[in-house]
Parts: sequence; structure tokens; C-alpha cells
Amino acid sequence: MASALATRYSQVRARTLALAAPLSPEDAQLQSMPDASPAKWHLAHTTWFFSRFVLGDAASAMPAGWDYLFNSYYVGAGERHARAERGLVSRPTLAEVLDWRRRIDDRLLERLERDDVDEAALDVLLLGTHHEEQHQELLLTDIKHAFWCNPLQPACFDAASAPDCAPPSMDAQSGTGPDWLARDEAIDWIGAAPWPTAGSGFAYDNESPRHRVLVPAHAIAARPVGNSEYAAFVSDGGYGTPALWLSDGWEHAQRAGWQRPLYWHADGTREFTLAGWRERDPDAPVRHVSFYEADAFARWAGARLPTEAEWETAAPGLAGRGRCWEWTSSAYAPYPGFRPLPGTLGEYNGKFMSGQQVLRGGSCATPPGHARATYRNFFAPPSRWQFSGLRLAKDPD
Amino acid sequence: MASALATRYSQVRARTLALAAPLSPEDAQLQSMPDASPAKWHLAHTTWFFSRFVLGDAASAMPAGWDYLFNSYYVGAGERHARAERGLVSRPTLAEVLDWRRRIDDRLLERLERDDVDEAALDVLLLGTHHEEQHQELLLTDIKHAFWCNPLQPACFDAASAPDCAPPSMDAQSGTGPDWLARDEAIDWIGAAPWPTAGSGFAYDNESPRHRVLVPAHAIAARPVGNSEYAAFVSDGGYGTPALWLSDGWEHAQRAGWQRPLYWHADGTREFTLAGWRERDPDAPVRHVSFYEADAFARWAGARLPTEAEWETAAPGLAGRGRCWEWTSSAYAPYPGFRPLPGTLGEYNGKFMSGQQVLRGGSCATPPGHARATYRNFFAPPSRWQFSGLRLAKDPD
Amino acid sequence: MASALATRYSQVRARTLALAAPLSPEDAQLQSMPDASPAKWHLAHTTWFFSRFVLGDAASAMPAGWDYLFNSYYVGAGERHARAERGLVSRPTLAEVLDWRRRIDDRLLERLERDDVDEAALDVLLLGTHHEEQHQELLLTDIKHAFWCNPLQPACFDAASAPDCAPPSMDAQSGTGPDWLARDEAIDWIGAAPWPTAGSGFAYDNESPRHRVLVPAHAIAARPVGNSEYAAFVSDGGYGTPALWLSDGWEHAQRAGWQRPLYWHADGTREFTLAGWRERDPDAPVRHVSFYEADAFARWAGARLPTEAEWETAAPGLAGRGRCWEWTSSAYAPYPGFRPLPGTLGEYNGKFMSGQQVLRGGSCATPPGHARATYRNFFAPPSRWQFSGLRLAKDPD
Amino acid sequence: MASALATRYSQVRARTLALAAPLSPEDAQLQSMPDASPAKWHLAHTTWFFSRFVLGDAASAMPAGWDYLFNSYYVGAGERHARAERGLVSRPTLAEVLDWRRRIDDRLLERLERDDVDEAALDVLLLGTHHEEQHQELLLTDIKHAFWCNPLQPACFDAASAPDCAPPSMDAQSGTGPDWLARDEAIDWIGAAPWPTAGSGFAYDNESPRHRVLVPAHAIAARPVGNSEYAAFVSDGGYGTPALWLSDGWEHAQRAGWQRPLYWHADGTREFTLAGWRERDPDAPVRHVSFYEADAFARWAGARLPTEAEWETAAPGLAGRGRCWEWTSSAYAPYPGFRPLPGTLGEYNGKFMSGQQVLRGGSCATPPGHARATYRNFFAPPSRWQFSGLRLAKDPD
Repeated sequence: MASALATRYSQVRARTLALAAPLSPEDAQLQSMPDASPAKWHLAHTTWFFSRFVLGDAASAMPAGWDYLFNSYYVGAGERHARAERGLVSRPTLAEVLDWRRRIDDRLLERLERDDVDEAALDVLLLGTHHEEQHQELLLTDIKHAFWCNPLQPACFDAASAPDCAPPSMDAQSGTGPDWLARDEAIDWIGAAPWPTAGSGFAYDNESPRHRVLVPAHAIAARPVGNSEYAAFVSDGGYGTPALWLSDGWEHAQRAGWQRPLYWHADGTREFTLAGWRERDPDAPVRHVSFYEADAFARWAGARLPTEAEWETAAPGLAGRGRCWEWTSSAYAPYPGFRPLPGTLGEYNGKFMSGQQVLRGGSCATPPGHARATYRNFFAPPSRWQFSGLRLAKDPD
Repeated sequence: MASALATRYSQVRARTLALAAPLSPEDAQLQSMPDASPAKWHLAHTTWFFSRFVLGDAASAMPAGWDYLFNSYYVGAGERHARAERGLVSRPTLAEVLDWRRRIDDRLLERLERDDVDEAALDVLLLGTHHEEQHQELLLTDIKHAFWCNPLQPACFDAASAPDCAPPSMDAQSGTGPDWLARDEAIDWIGAAPWPTAGSGFAYDNESPRHRVLVPAHAIAARPVGNSEYAAFVSDGGYGTPALWLSDGWEHAQRAGWQRPLYWHADGTREFTLAGWRERDPDAPVRHVSFYEADAFARWAGARLPTEAEWETAAPGLAGRGRCWEWTSSAYAPYPGFRPLPGTLGEYNGKFMSGQQVLRGGSCATPPGHARATYRNFFAPPSRWQFSGLRLAKDPD
Repeated sequence: MASALATRYSQVRARTLALAAPLSPEDAQLQSMPDASPAKWHLAHTTWFFSRFVLGDAASAMPAGWDYLFNSYYVGAGERHARAERGLVSRPTLAEVLDWRRRIDDRLLERLERDDVDEAALDVLLLGTHHEEQHQELLLTDIKHAFWCNPLQPACFDAASAPDCAPPSMDAQSGTGPDWLARDEAIDWIGAAPWPTAGSGFAYDNESPRHRVLVPAHAIAARPVGNSEYAAFVSDGGYGTPALWLSDGWEHAQRAGWQRPLYWHADGTREFTLAGWRERDPDAPVRHVSFYEADAFARWAGARLPTEAEWETAAPGLAGRGRCWEWTSSAYAPYPGFRPLPGTLGEYNGKFMSGQQVLRGGSCATPPGHARATYRNFFAPPSRWQFSGLRLAKDPD
Repeated sequence: MASALATRYSQVRARTLALAAPLSPEDAQLQSMPDASPAKWHLAHTTWFFSRFVLGDAASAMPAGWDYLFNSYYVGAGERHARAERGLVSRPTLAEVLDWRRRIDDRLLERLERDDVDEAALDVLLLGTHHEEQHQELLLTDIKHAFWCNPLQPACFDAASAPDCAPPSMDAQSGTGPDWLARDEAIDWIGAAPWPTAGSGFAYDNESPRHRVLVPAHAIAARPVGNSEYAAFVSDGGYGTPALWLSDGWEHAQRAGWQRPLYWHADGTREFTLAGWRERDPDAPVRHVSFYEADAFARWAGARLPTEAEWETAAPGLAGRGRCWEWTSSAYAPYPGFRPLPGTLGEYNGKFMSGQQVLRGGSCATPPGHARATYRNFFAPPSRWQFSGLRLAKDPD
């Protein structure tokens, strides 16, 4: 067990480094908006997580001030740096952060080898690897946004290694949009058994407990909405028709001047990617739309977004999962009987259960094996710098 | 039918005037924040609703500019005045608005008497009376806030007529707080049949369709949380303990400097009412708390807020309904199969289904007979100028 | 002396009431922006000035809270209400404020009659009448702005009594724009002897001391810039040519979307006045332009704004004074040897000597006899709700 | 002449590199506020100035997008990047910018050697070296602020090379504060002959023309205000006494929470420098105070700030010049007869003549030989990240 964990730990840590490899120290410091973080910060924060919560290091065991700098939002772990100012930290340097990663890795692997990590810490270690995988995706979405903000809009990766440039290979991509899966009303189970308990696989606390739901009769699309379909919405004046939008969404879109998905070019054919400007694949799922846009598109299409229960219970039959996160109509809220993890890690998920919308699926930037059918991603309705798209559902006639 | 409607119409319209009677023209023009509206505007907007949607008046049939001034948010009804600037309209005067009310009332009642209103318009007329009742409550909450903002904090009503000063008479008030009603998992019906359809009583579109839900096992408090219980939370440092709060809530509370419910005095014994400062009744339900405060209180109490389905299915057994709106843990979202009203009135409810939380029950300011068990009120999580309190629920151990 | 003062006092007070006579209680409560105040507040504040500073009333001698409400900015006189929230005060009512005016007037005149006012208080009384005259002009500019903000843009006065609709009668108006008055370098005196000292006429402290200045050789226009000249600047693309503007001015104009003077109609022929929309007189001085616009116009015209010393020393030869305030190139700063009035009244002028630009002359809304050649009016560079225009100057070739 | 210019050019360019030498690529990208710029940007912008204005390079002759990125505020030179987003530019890298510097230097020096630069371009070249010296000082003040914003507050330089840690050596520093120089009223000359004209030394356009002024009788302090004197103001409650402050200053100080000069430690003995935290020298001039603080201090001291004419005409007798910029009471305005440089370079100074206050002298960070008695520095009244202090003046009794 500890040895399997050591392997997983090493692989996850190495994958983060590989993703950050093309970034110069200057790139790694960019913070383009308060919601995004510098790549250097992601590299440091994930290390802090292991140092603090697995190795049990006190602030005093870290270089002075680093505990303050690299705590994200854990009030129980003490005071922390203002999120919006992470881009103002040139020191420690990227090299110092990478060196710290190595030292923490060495200590942790050596402890694992000596079997000097108790059960509870092993659990947190496993949690930490999943945590780091989340930051791998954020690192990519954040750096994409930062490069977009540079007037030169340079390429960060080459096309071969940019995760958002991979050729569509899944069946789901050959032809986009619905075929509808019609489903009758049913009582079904969703969610995951609380982790860590005997026999349960890893899941975040927000996925638990597994519980019964009544899913009403509905139809859900076999495939996510594709670029060509979304382009039809744009051409049809979707961004200029208030009746299609939620009130908040319309106001937000007007104030922000939205005319199309975040990274679409005004020329109608190209999109910005981690490898710079590229032709847009009409058959690929649309991405980088906010909840408001997803909702407006669905209304335009005479449909609606699925609830997360509809999505999860249909998951085995859904094609095209894995290319974009799919907005659902469900606000992010606790499942009945939800219990946060004990202690400071209880802040991991629970305190964000307000003002956010659930997304399901997984994206081109999600680490392989990271997501699962019960996985609940969540972002605020206006967010669109994530790889977020949608799938349609509809009520019976 | 038309005659019963005429009676109802006359009564509702008269009640609005009675509520506004103590207000001077200067009082009636106050707008203390963008979320609130002047009483004069409420008087005019409810009239506009009947003129426009029942009598079918075009903008040109109204005094010049009034259609623009008194449309609230109906995009389908044309351009409208900026909400935040309603307090800058000294002309038309209160007297002119009251005169307009009389003229519309005369025309409408005369049409009803002549039986010159078609079925569809009769439905809208009924809707309009419910709409006006909603504005009666808003008129009270808005003027309360405006008087609070005056450094003199004067009384608007005398104690006898101030709806928030009525002595607690219901059983619910003799002793506050839980007795817990334990409830097993059940499949149950919530919501109302779509109105208007044959045989259905009035309900807003957001209450429909009636549909089946699975309500998990839980317990719900027989009574809403009282002032004395909430005072214990305040004394216990609830406003200074981030672990009790949602992340958004904590941030909001810090920025706004919240230390207690909106209208509580720092002296710990008084509250501001429509009749000015008064002793606070320890046994009365707490009110003027935001969703964030309600949620933090529930966590402090080792409990949680109920979902709206839990609330509605338990409603017949709940005491103390009718004194404050009760925040639920449910985000305001469409029921499965929801259809907005046709045409412009489809904007009434549906477009606000984002960023809001459902409240159930009814308050001391809700017109008698206005609310019902299926009624879904909704406000944004930080709102606290409404008469909003809470009731606890909890999961089985 | 006291009897002449009593007469002056009565006349000034009566004139304020006459100006406010057309305003309904609702009109008198309007505050359209933080820089402006409700007419009711002007009526109360000027009364407070006499009550507090002449009659020596303590806060406790006024109705409770009024000292707090009607102190404008005198820190030395105690805490005061937030300026931006003056429009939220429906109580006291206009009637109560007018009644207070009467009572203060009675007390004050009775004291004067009894010769029961000491020398120092008589001086403050005289100051108070000049103070009230300033508020007479502000009352007009503030109510004009408030009516402009009403989407109906109603008329506040009839054309005969609206001070900004008076027909141009001065010689200056028959033909606008320069004839240049060429002036050689000279040492000259500007400013006024400090008041109150034996033999000095009334002047504000900011006009003193009288002192010598070196005025360089220059030419100054005999007449202020007229509407037709300013219209040529507009037509010539002045508002779209950054090279004509100060950097701050350009940024401000872009952000605010300025395309023409504040109250000009886009149709190019009308302007908004206290009597509503009217034909614009091409020969009248342009007004309602900011310092930034005045400066840009001057640059476009190959000229510049005069300094206040150039203006004052040329004053006897300038035609057209009295129709608009004229922006100068002089920042509002203390004269050498400036001493504020003693005590709390030292706050009257001195503490605003930063971030403001001096205007000279007087406008159609300035009470007759109020201004003088040494008079220094001042506003922030972006302000344009005052009757502010300009006169050109230029350096020798 | 060209050879002397070549030497000067090389020396100035080398000095910039030497100042930036301790900065890592990450440091060089920091932008802590919109008013400040990254060191990399300073390095690039000064190069752009020579490329564009001396070598006459078109945008197309530069790497794509660099003309857009490195134009500061010259509207006449085309569109440019948003000032507040300069810190988001990781590409071009610091190495690429430094390489560009070398290439421009090579081309320029080679052209000079070949005598292939016309007279006008030689003038601009000289201007460019003075321009680069200004950016040398800004580079230091901007990086100091950026390091201050890092919660670790690291040292950027070692104490020996940090310009703000040099030991006080001038006589002025041995004992601070006034001895008063009493001066009679006088007509005197200030300003510089317009450059470039035959025989004139270099001066910015805002220093011209040389002109006569009347300087009133006054006294001016021989030495700038020292830290110990300013500390007495702080101890005496200066930051809590509104009567000492300009109205704008008080409001600004309250909103920003000012309690002491920008880089003073709350412990009362240390200050933050480019070499990190250091003991504060009580005899050194106070620095990093805003105009508002300087003005309040002067009022507390029973004095005032000098005008720029008082300063300049007294300059030969003033000790302690050269350690901090000294706020004057003069708003930044054109001298009589001011003419901006022709063409795009006319934007260098003139368009900022609004909303700024003149500072005189020169600071520990000003390049040796850069400033002169006629030199007019200018910043907005709230600015305090520059090395800004003050000297007192007073009127005759």
C-alpha cells in the first residue's frame, strides 16, 4: 500500500513538473486575474500541502514566510497571503520553489520507505495527490489565460504537447450534438461512499454520502454541444437576445461585452489555445463558456441543462465525456448527510457551497484517471477560463 | 367570477393605499439602495402592471414617459429606467401617481362591470393582485430601510399599525426553537398545478409543476429560531468565527462589518422597527438575517437549514409559520418541467433562477392570505432587509 | 450698521425662499450626485450657519439630530452626516425646515433690534449672508442637475423666472469672442484687504491679503467664448482629438463619454435649462463645460486660459462678465501671507486649496452684487454642472 | 559633439544596466500598482525611445508588437498597451529585452561614429539620455515598492549599493531642520532658456522660458525636514488631527489608513529600504511622504511649503539639496510663454499639467548630474512611493 502510494506520489509530482517545464521563470510568475494563480504558486502550494498536512511541518520548519505565502484558503492553518497578490512574489524564485519540491519529495519518499507514516497521514497523502492533480488542470487554465492577456498572445506549448490541441479521437466527436437518451422517472443512487472508510475508493467529501434520489422523466443528449452548434447560436444573435438569458447572465454579458466564447477569434474560424491561435474544430465540444452562456444556449436550443443527478445516473451511456467540463443546472450544495473531512481539511470543499454551479465530466486538461462519474467540479456562474462546455437535456413533451 | 375579482381587486388596491397613507410625499420618494424602491414607485409600478397587461394600454396611452419610468424589468415591454435612479424622480409627484391609480381603477372596474375583459386578461388581473401584494411587502421593507438610513431613525408608523410590532400571539411564540419533528425517507409531492388551468387555484409559475420528490430521512424544527437563541450565537462569538461560515459569507460579513442582525441595536436589547426603536421580544423569531448568517447559525447549532422540499412536505406540522421568511438550503431553480408564463409575463420569475436562495413561509409584512405552502420566495444570499429568519433541520445521527 | 445688516439679512433670506418657491417637497429632496445637495438641505444648512455661528446655539438647542444633519463640512463643529446621503432625509420635512427658518429669522432679527449681537457675531452674520448667497447659486445648479437626471427632463421654473433663460442684454453679448486686449508686463496689486478689519469691505479670507504680483505681457479676450465658437470646436472633432487635451482631461472625457457641453442636446440646437429644453443662443457665452474642456478649447483656438492675476488686473476692461464663471489656468492656492478666519470658520475656504481650479467672474445664477473682481470661485477640473465657461488669453508672439 | 554624446549615451545606458543587475527575470517583471512599471519595461521603453525617435524606426522595424508594448503614453506614436497590465508580459523575456538594448546601442553608436545622425536627431538623443536617467530613478522607486509588497519584504540590493542606504555625508545632515533664510520681496528670474537653442544647456520644455517673477518676502529653511522632526509630528497625533490637513488629504489618509510615512516601521525606529529593513537615521531628511502629509506637517510646524519660485531663487543658499525631492505649494502649470517641444515629443511634459504638484531638488536615487535648480519634477498629491520629503517656508510675521 505505502509502496503503491509512493509510486502514485512520484508520478503525480513528476507530471506537474512536466507540465511546467515549458514555462520560464517569468511565465511562472504571471497572475492575470485574482481567480487565477501563478504556476510557481501552484508548484509551491501543492508542496506546502504535503509539508503541512502529511509531514506535519510547522510554519517554523519551512523557510520563513512560506507557510503564509503558500497556504491557499485554510483558515485553520493560519493567516495567509492575499490571493490577488500572488503575482507580486518574485522571491522565492522558481528555482527555490523547485528545490523545495525536491526536498519535500525526498523526505516524504524516505518516510514512506521507512514505513514511518501513520494511517491517517497516508490518507492525507492520497488526498494530496488528487489535490495536486486539480492544480495541474488549474495551472494549465491559468497560464492559458495569462498568455491570452499578453498583447502578443504567444504560444506556451507546442501543438503536440498542448492538451487543448489534441486531435479529437473519441467516437463522440464524429458528429456532435444530441442523439437523445430518453429516460423514465426512477429512484436511483448517486454519490460515493464516504472516504476514507474500509473498502471505499478515493472520493472527495463533497461526493458523499451515496444516497437515493428521484430522477424525473427526461431526455439527455448523448454528446456535448459542439463548436458548430454553438457557432449557430452566435450567428443567430444569441448574444443580443435578452429573452434567452438569465437576468444575471444578461447583465454580466453586457457589462463584460461578451460576443462569443472566451477564446474564440472574431474571425469566426480560429481559437486561442495553449499552442497559440489554431483553426477551430467544428466537431469538437465548445469550451470556455460560462454557466450563463451554457444556459442561454440551451434555452435557444429549446432544451435545458441537465441536473447533476440526471448526468450522473446517465453517465455510463454518455459519449464524449472527457473533453470539457459540462455545466449542470444544479447549484453546488451539500448532499443529504454530508460531513466535511475532520479538522482543517474540512475546509477543502464544504465552505464553497454557495454561489457556485456544479460541472460534471472532465476536460482535455484533466489528468487521466482523475475524474469519475460521481465527481463534482464547481465554479461561479460567470467563470469561463476553465475548459467548460455543456450537454443538453429536456423535459418530456 | 368577474365580480369576485372586482372585489378582490378593490380590496388589494385599497390595502396598498392604506399602507402608504402615513408616508409624506418626501417619504414616498426615498430610495436607500438599488435593491429597494421608493413607495411612490411601488404605487405607480403596480398600476402600470394593470394598465399595460390587463387594459392593454400602449406607452402612448399613458402620460409621456411613464411607461419607461414604471416598467420594472420586463425587457419584452420595452426600454426602462435605471433601477438605481428611481429615487431621483420627483415628477410625477405622489399626488399625480395617486390620481393615476384612481383613473386606472375606475377604468378597470368599469370594464369588469361591463364584462368587457376577456378570460386571458382576467387571469392577468388576478396575477396582478398577487403581484401588488408582493409589492405591499416590499413597500414596507423598503421604507423601513430608508428610515433606518436617516440618521434620526424616525418612526414611520405608530406601534399599533406597524406590522413588525404586532404582539406575538401564535402558540409558536410561547417558547422558541426546536422541538424536532423526525421524518423518515419518503417519496412525496411538492409544488402546485400550473395556473391558469381548469380547477387550479392561483400559484406563480415557479411553483409548478406539481411533482414527486424523494425527501431523505431528517428532522425539522417545529418552530423558527428565536431572538434569544440567535443572541446566544452572537454572544458566543459567532460573527468572529470563520469556521462557522461559508467562504462567501465570511468575506461578505467582514467587508460589511456585520456584528448582529440588520436592525439590532448594539445595546443588545432593542431593535429598529417601522415604529422606531423598540424592546426586542426574546421569544419572537429572529429576522433580518441574511442566508449567510442563517447558515452560520445553523452550523453553530449543530444543525443545517432545511431544503425547500423538506420544508414544504413538513409544512402542515410546522408552528410559527407566518412571522418571518425562512431561508432554505435550496438554490432557486426551476422545478422539473417548469414552464414560464407565455409572453412578457414569462419574465416574472424564470429569469431570476440564478444566484438566489429560496425562502419559505411568510412574514409579519406578508399580506394575509398571500403566501401558501408551495410559495417560493427568493433573495440573494447577502440580503437582509427582508423579514428573513430561519428554521433548523438536521440529518439523522 | 445693525439695521443695515438686518435689512440685508432679511433680503437675502427672502431671496432664497423665492428661489425655492417653485419646488415641491419632493423636488426639494432630490440629490442627483454626491457633489450636489437637496434644496431642502441648502435651506436648512444656511439656517444652521446662523443658528450655530451667530446665535451661538449648541446642538442641544436645535431639534435633536439637526446639528448633525445640517453641518456641511466643519470638523470643528462636530460630527456630521455623510454628504452623499443627504437625499435620504425625508424627515425633517420641507415644512419643518421652513418653519425653522422662520424661527431663527425671528430670533436673529429680534436680537439685532435689541442690539444684542456683539461685533464679532455681526461679522459672522454678514459672512453668513454671503454664505447664503453662495448656496442660492448652488441650489439652482443642483436642482438643474436633478431635473436633468429625471428621464422626463421637466422644467423647474417658467422661462421668465429661470435665471439661465434671461435674454442677453449686455453689450458683451452682441457678437462674442475676442477682441484682444494687449497688455504689457506689469507689477500690479491683486486681492482684497483682510476682512474684517477697519475700513475693509467684505471679502472671503481666500481673497486676502492684497498683494503685489508680476503679470507678464499677454493679451486677454474682451469677451467670453460664445456658443457658436464652441460649436465650431465640437464640429471640428475637438472631442475626438487627444492632442488637444490634458492627459487627465482626455481620460476623463473618454470614460464619461463627453461629446459636448453638459446640457447641450445632440441635435446641435437646443440646451437644457431650468425652464426645460430651449433654443440655444449662439451669441451667449458657452457654459457647463469643465476645466478640461475649457483648456482643450483654448488649445484648439491657439490660445490658452488666463491666470487669475491676468483676469483680475484686466477686470475693469472685460466685457461680458456676469454670465458665466470663467475657468482660469490657476490652481486654487493660498495667496502669500494667507490667513484663514480664526476658529471653526477657518475651514470655510482654506482646507480646499488642493485639487481645485480657480474660476472668476460670476454667472447668470450668481446673486446680484455677490461677486467682485477679487472673488475666487473654485471647483474640481472635471466639474461641469456649474455655469462655467471660459475666456481666452494668449502669450505675445 | 557627437563623440561627447556617444560617451554620454554609453555611460547612461551602462548605468541603467548596472542598476538592474541585481534583479532576477522574475524581479524585473514585477508591477505592484498601475503607477509603477516593471524594471523590464523600463529597460525596454528607454530603448524604444531611441529606436523610435532617434533611429526613426517604424513599428515594423521592431519585433512584432514591441512598438505597442513599449510606447508609454505618446498618442502621436500610435496605440499602446494598457499601463496597468505591464506586469502581465512575460514574453518578451528579460534576456530578449537586454539583447534588444545591445542591438539598438550598436546601431546607434555605429551611426554616431559614421556621423550619420542629423542635428535634430542629436538633440533627441541627448533628450533620450535625460529621459533614461528619469527612468533610472523610477526603476528604483518602482522595485522598492514591489519588494515592499512581497510579504517577505526582501532586500533587493546590498546595503553598499542601495542608493537609499548611503550614509549621510553632506553638512546639511548634521543637524536637520530650519535655520531660516529671511528674504525680502524681489523681482527675480526663474526657469531656463528654451532648449535646444544656440548656447542653451539641456533643460526640459517645462522649465522654459526663463521669465521674471515677483517673489514675496518670506523665510525659507536652510535644510529639509528630518526624520526626527517628522517623528515628533507623528507622536503628537498629526495623523489624527483633521484641522492640520487639507480636506482631500484628510479623506485620502483616512481611506488609506496612513499612520506614518510609507516605509516606516510601526516600531518607530526602522524603515524599509532597497536593502531591506534598516535603522532609520534621525538626522536624514524624511522621505516617502505625500504632498498631503508634507502640507499637514508644515501646518503643524506653524509654517508652510515654499512655492517653486521661492525654492528656485533661494536654491544657491539651500543646504541638503540632493537627498529627497521636496514638495512645493505650486501646482504644476505652464510658465508664461511655455511651448511644448514640436511633434510627438510635445507630449513629454505639457499634457500632464493638471492635478500634479511640483517637487524640487533631487533625491538619493536621482542620477548624479541629472537635476538642476530649474528642474521641475511633478507627482500627484497622494503619491508617496517616490523619495519625496519637504522643506519649510513661512510668511513674515
